[in-house]
Amino acid sequence: MTKNRLEAFSDGVLAIIITIMILEIKVPEDHSFESLKPLIPVFLSYVLSFVYIGIYWNNHHHMLQAVKKVNGSILWHNLFLLFWLSLIPFGTSWIGSQLFASVPMSIYGFILLMCAVSYFSLQNKIIKLEGKDSTLYKAVEKDKKGKISLACYIAAVPLAFVSPWISGLLYIAVALIWIIPDKRIENQINKL
Amino acid sequence: MTKNRLEAFSDGVLAIIITIMILEIKVPEDHSFESLKPLIPVFLSYVLSFVYIGIYWNNHHHMLQAVKKVNGSILWHNLFLLFWLSLIPFGTSWIGSQLFASVPMSIYGFILLMCAVSYFSLQNKIIKLEGKDSTLYKAVEKDKKGKISLACYIAAVPLAFVSPWISGLLYIAVALIWIIPDKRIENQINKL
Amino acid sequence: MTKNRLEAFSDGVLAIIITIMILEIKVPEDHSFESLKPLIPVFLSYVLSFVYIGIYWNNHHHMLQAVKKVNGSILWHNLFLLFWLSLIPFGTSWIGSQLFASVPMSIYGFILLMCAVSYFSLQNKIIKLEGKDSTLYKAVEKDKKGKISLACYIAAVPLAFVSPWISGLLYIAVALIWIIPDKRIENQINKL
Amino acid sequence: MTKNRLEAFSDGVLAIIITIMILEIKVPEDHSFESLKPLIPVFLSYVLSFVYIGIYWNNHHHMLQAVKKVNGSILWHNLFLLFWLSLIPFGTSWIGSQLFASVPMSIYGFILLMCAVSYFSLQNKIIKLEGKDSTLYKAVEKDKKGKISLACYIAAVPLAFVSPWISGLLYIAVALIWIIPDKRIENQINKL
Repeated sequence: MTKNRLEAFSDGVLAIIITIMILEIKVPEDHSFESLKPLIPVFLSYVLSFVYIGIYWNNHHHMLQAVKKVNGSILWHNLFLLFWLSLIPFGTSWIGSQLFASVPMSIYGFILLMCAVSYFSLQNKIIKLEGKDSTLYKAVEKDKKGKISLACYIAAVPLAFVSPWISGLLYIAVALIWIIPDKRIENQINKL
Repeated sequence: MTKNRLEAFSDGVLAIIITIMILEIKVPEDHSFESLKPLIPVFLSYVLSFVYIGIYWNNHHHMLQAVKKVNGSILWHNLFLLFWLSLIPFGTSWIGSQLFASVPMSIYGFILLMCAVSYFSLQNKIIKLEGKDSTLYKAVEKDKKGKISLACYIAAVPLAFVSPWISGLLYIAVALIWIIPDKRIENQINKL
Repeated sequence: MTKNRLEAFSDGVLAIIITIMILEIKVPEDHSFESLKPLIPVFLSYVLSFVYIGIYWNNHHHMLQAVKKVNGSILWHNLFLLFWLSLIPFGTSWIGSQLFASVPMSIYGFILLMCAVSYFSLQNKIIKLEGKDSTLYKAVEKDKKGKISLACYIAAVPLAFVSPWISGLLYIAVALIWIIPDKRIENQINKL
Repeated sequence: MTKNRLEAFSDGVLAIIITIMILEIKVPEDHSFESLKPLIPVFLSYVLSFVYIGIYWNNHHHMLQAVKKVNGSILWHNLFLLFWLSLIPFGTSWIGSQLFASVPMSIYGFILLMCAVSYFSLQNKIIKLEGKDSTLYKAVEKDKKGKISLACYIAAVPLAFVSPWISGLLYIAVALIWIIPDKRIENQINKL
């Protein structure tokens, strides 16, 4: 079984998820600069989610390069990941329209947590099939970035009720450790 | 004629179908947990339909791997399948927003039935072209899962007027026999 | 320059066009059979346009198989075709929601006419590049189906003001001559 | 790392961007020719943005043909370009619905400027990776079209407050220098 269609289908779903979020930024009914102001929170939540989908696409791309075989179980684990990713536009729109209130911020964190859980679940299935000699296993053996991300999501879900800003900062921090290719950050993380 | 574009086009349509359903889960205008409550039926219908599209993508993927030749007739049978699958978002949204009432549940079953009928029709066209020695013919020769699914849909369409819950359970049951790779279920089905 | 991305991009646009039309079939706010009745015209226009996009995808698929070289001019002619095809969802929704009134039916015909014109324009560009020995030139040399289609569209645009039903029948007739692989119809057409 | 998925994902996003813009052309609630009149500005802005996305797809296609290697940095620069391109439907809809008023025209120009900046940024990353002997470097060495475009966008953003029509003419002019393959224009530009 080839992995081409798995990649093509996942790319299609991710491309649509990333693009339909823009439909939530409603065009203002006025033509002043002020009419853009209420859009700022929706725009910020769009930027955050765009970055997250970008990170998932990037990592998914790398993970599948290590894959040689694909079976039914991997197809379903991949669909499970796509399911949770497909809920990101809903979460994005809710946190933006409700000005980052506690409940939406907590639910958004729960969606991100489930995305991460289903991503690791897919990764484990692939490693199980490819074996411990695979390049994927070696690459993610000490996956500290992944573990820190999971811990941040788990913390952010209840902390949103203390202050939604703590959760927001945690979501931004997780995004940053994945996109900034800073050797010092990498080293700091590896020292932990 | 190559099958690459047939796969790419079908993947594109399936990816869009699976993703536009999320647009039907309208973001609440409030930020309380209670505001999520009315979304539960829409969410449940989304989960069910996501699983169904996943099953079709999965099976379509397997079916086309057995295909070597593609002709105009197969292209049209494939489009006929995509047509019925494209109605799933409509059915999904209707059963969710009308709290699984009888008429929507019956129509949803009819859409699923037509998806299955057009799937088998495509399968037969492929077998006719590939011959009875093809791996596809051998794989689906005793296609009991397929026959049980058809029977469930045919039963669910009128039974929705007795009780929509019976239909709902039948739709869930069909989904489960396709996604659970349980040897005992397979054996039970093969004993029938 | 390879034609792979041209195909992939066109497949993507066609898959999205075919699927976003379903968003125009608004889910009824009631759960009775009667609530489906006002959807019948929108549904019929969806079926017609689905078939048209299917025909274009099918023909585009065949045309590009004859193509070996791709240049900037072909890319732009292809985009010109995609532009007119992208207006089909608008026309579809308008004829359905306005119960096939004269003006929408005429505009719908104009969109179909421009799709056909841009399709032939793309075809001519490809033949010019590939040469008169190409398989594409031989295949479309006596393209009677194409000429009849053009004539029908040109007739249907003004005839919609005599009676929109004449235009409607012409659109259905054109669709049928492309999808029915009936040798007798082919022979009748070839005798003209 | 292969560039296939980078192309496939970008094609998917561009295909969706180009197609969702059509959803902004709302179907009139009447069936007269007059009911089409208020759609004219939205339609014109659709045409302009369709051409721009077409130009970007075309140039992106050419640029990636020169690419042999892909790394994480290129993936992120590509996502940065897709982010700004994803804002084009918003800008398009706003200038169309607000009859090309100053603020929307200026913001639209800013989006186009950021698209161009991120495109050149991606191009520079690729040249850095491929080296100065690469065909891409040679092709864009004296990229006068690109520099003129940038200058036009930078001028159009403030000039929209003098007159939005100046900005509009600048956007049209930039589009024309990219799509008209006129040797004389090319020569005139090269003489500068």
